[in-house]
Amino acid sequence: MPHLTVEYSSNLSGFPEAQMLAELNQTVTASPEIADEFDLKSRCVAHASYAVGTQTAGRAFVHVQLRLLSGRSPEAKLDFSQRIAAVLRRLTPQPEGLVVQLSVEIVDMDRPSYIKDRL
Amino acid sequence: MPHLTVEYSSNLSGFPEAQMLAELNQTVTASPEIADEFDLKSRCVAHASYAVGTQTAGRAFVHVQLRLLSGRSPEAKLDFSQRIAAVLRRLTPQPEGLVVQLSVEIVDMDRPSYIKDRL
Amino acid sequence: MPHLTVEYSSNLSGFPEAQMLAELNQTVTASPEIADEFDLKSRCVAHASYAVGTQTAGRAFVHVQLRLLSGRSPEAKLDFSQRIAAVLRRLTPQPEGLVVQLSVEIVDMDRPSYIKDRL
Repeated sequence: MPHLTVEYSSNLSGFPEAQMLAELNQTVTASPEIADEFDLKSRCVAHASYAVGTQTAGRAFVHVQLRLLSGRSPEAKLDFSQRIAAVLRRLTPQPEGLVVQLSVEIVDMDRPSYIKDRL
Repeated sequence: MPHLTVEYSSNLSGFPEAQMLAELNQTVTASPEIADEFDLKSRCVAHASYAVGTQTAGRAFVHVQLRLLSGRSPEAKLDFSQRIAAVLRRLTPQPEGLVVQLSVEIVDMDRPSYIKDRL
Repeated sequence: MPHLTVEYSSNLSGFPEAQMLAELNQTVTASPEIADEFDLKSRCVAHASYAVGTQTAGRAFVHVQLRLLSGRSPEAKLDFSQRIAAVLRRLTPQPEGLVVQLSVEIVDMDRPSYIKDRL
């Protein structure tokens, strides 16, 4: 059931999208909170139109949002963030002259109204 | 006021974006919870960069998120999910060799700080 | 820490993406709630695949979502919405024959599990 979205500013040239998704999925599904690796749906979006603060040059960002069905403990959520942040720190490119901000957000999804199915 | 987003993995070739949005908007606005059909803003996003679990081939997904001003009952939210899931089951392509995961999420939007206007 | 996303329907031709982001970031970071302008990460997404209600022509939308760490007062959140709405009203194009809906949503992000870092 979890959904993961990676967003990054397109000035991070050489961003390894496929590897990033593969390693994030690996570490997230390795959590004891995830019953079946199959359930994790992840996507990566490069933003060509972005702005960081009020200065136009020299700044980049990567943001990951993980959406989980509600009910996880604060500790479990922080563990997910830490797993994700570790991969971001390792795989995010650092082009010269750019300050890169990384961030990770965990979101609770409303459980009673969530529907999933397979075709 | 509601916002609807359809996301799908781009291996679902032939995904009927326009028809999907039209039929989702039809069924969502037919709910007694929606006062004016005009209020529903929907978009569809195909993801070329995605990963489902830890295996790279043979998997696809479609996810719909519906964002509503807070205050709906659990029954009303589940009814929205069911309306949406019925359309997804009917219109999502099933390319041979792909297992397709469908999911529907309902999100409460903070009502006091929400602003809407028309130009 | 805040994240801002502008989405608009692509029938709003001439939408001033860079100026919109620059002026939104200017006004949002001018709020006394924001300690460092550097923290605001904004992006703009044009949707070519969209539908407003059940009618296919003559309708457009712009939606802004601002995600903030939880804990802001209702007044502070409404102030953010109003700052954003003022920029939208000023900069959104009004092509002839289109009714344009503007909306602004403020989202609380879970604070204990949020991680940020710089490279």
